[in-house]
Amino acid sequence: MGKNNAIGVFDSGLGGLSAVRVLKKILPDEKIIYFGDTGRVPYGTRSPEIITKYALDDMNFLSSFGLKAALVACGTVSSVALGALREAFDIPITGVVEASAKKACEISKNKRIALLATPATVKNAAHERYINENFDGFSVMGVGCPMFVPLVENAYVSRDCKVTRMIADEYISKLYDFAPDCIILGCTHYPIIRDIILDSARKIISEDISIVDSGEEAAHEIKRFLERENLLSDEKGGSVEYYVSDEVYGFCESASLFLGETISDVRKIDITSYHYTDNN
Amino acid sequence: MGKNNAIGVFDSGLGGLSAVRVLKKILPDEKIIYFGDTGRVPYGTRSPEIITKYALDDMNFLSSFGLKAALVACGTVSSVALGALREAFDIPITGVVEASAKKACEISKNKRIALLATPATVKNAAHERYINENFDGFSVMGVGCPMFVPLVENAYVSRDCKVTRMIADEYISKLYDFAPDCIILGCTHYPIIRDIILDSARKIISEDISIVDSGEEAAHEIKRFLERENLLSDEKGGSVEYYVSDEVYGFCESASLFLGETISDVRKIDITSYHYTDNN
Repeated sequence: MGKNNAIGVFDSGLGGLSAVRVLKKILPDEKIIYFGDTGRVPYGTRSPEIITKYALDDMNFLSSFGLKAALVACGTVSSVALGALREAFDIPITGVVEASAKKACEISKNKRIALLATPATVKNAAHERYINENFDGFSVMGVGCPMFVPLVENAYVSRDCKVTRMIADEYISKLYDFAPDCIILGCTHYPIIRDIILDSARKIISEDISIVDSGEEAAHEIKRFLERENLLSDEKGGSVEYYVSDEVYGFCESASLFLGETISDVRKIDITSYHYTDNN
Repeated sequence: MGKNNAIGVFDSGLGGLSAVRVLKKILPDEKIIYFGDTGRVPYGTRSPEIITKYALDDMNFLSSFGLKAALVACGTVSSVALGALREAFDIPITGVVEASAKKACEISKNKRIALLATPATVKNAAHERYINENFDGFSVMGVGCPMFVPLVENAYVSRDCKVTRMIADEYISKLYDFAPDCIILGCTHYPIIRDIILDSARKIISEDISIVDSGEEAAHEIKRFLERENLLSDEKGGSVEYYVSDEVYGFCESASLFLGETISDVRKIDITSYHYTDNN
């Protein structure tokens, strides 16, 4: 694939836009194609089989653009289905697990790392496996946070929102005995409520705690990959095209929360018509 | 169709089980086939187009059992897609809108009826249309409650659960000026938190307020239909078969909350292989 091909990014819905925001900032001359599977969100409370099936469809759609690289900006898919995606598609694919796990190991001093993520991601334990295989002496504790995605998607995100603070306290309390000094936000929705999570962690665990944003780390990983492979765009001025699998209107309304800017050029596609089969 | 054919019931996920519970009680000798589209839940925050598409698939699956009647135990589908279902399938189909709207008009003295439902159901305003066409002088106010389904699906359901109480207070407060004396629970998930909703309504609106459970009313409507058409089963001892579109395990775990009993005989199907087309 050539330098000026696009980078594909997908997520179950809106969350991946937090990674797009970073990509746009650090790679302003790249062409980005984003797909949000809003017709089938959420993924994180579903089974590995269904998540893998949906992820293959999503990448099948994105691959039609002829990508030079793809970012799976969904913690759940990165944990559960990255292997299946890499096997099925001849595209360099980066997930959000490895870069964030590596970063957490660099930052943590007491070598106790917490993972806040969807139930599917926690159950899969991909972060723990990666850390055990690549670093010594770390322990990882995952806490499934099934309410965070609906809270974020329904805009319960202001720092003083009592409901989200109570739910955050409930999840963070499970980490009290483990006493981590670093928390990975393993779902790309969570950076939107980063302040609430950090407030809760400082109150319940320790003032001295760091947060790793997995979407942000993965965006930096993509940049390093393009530099290494000499695949950075040599055209000036990047662009982002947005595609979703449910109505455009609702997506545009919420997207600004994640992107920090309003968008209007979003197109709807029928994701079931990109159903992936081995014969593709 | 014969007397001893099954009654089909479907919902986006677990909620419809609250209607199955009533059906089993009032029609103990019927054979019931339940389908919960757990692989694509929730429906209520999606667009009418996607909801209709999913509902046609769901009924397409159920129709393969040769039904004598079907109950759409999903407020969202009943509001948005009942017409499309009745056009596509030659089966008597009952939704949850009409029976609950009728019941609310019988009960309400001040003729102000509130509807708590998913955003898609509220936007569609099917209850209001039905009431305006069939009753005089009633007004209806709908409040979209997008957090209730995730709260119920994640078991935030005990009467003293602070988070659910706060969210309920937020939604019920929107009804303060309207001052209804009757509230329709327009989504079959909501009966699970009926006590919380009632506590909130008594506190914020009035001690003298009634709740109408749309799944329950629809179950009674089905019974009246079978009696009228002489279609009641003449065999003794009913049964329920459960089908879902994601993993069986999670469904069994949560189902007891809705059914008041544990179940184990649940089968998983691939709902995408029942994709409905006009040529079916």
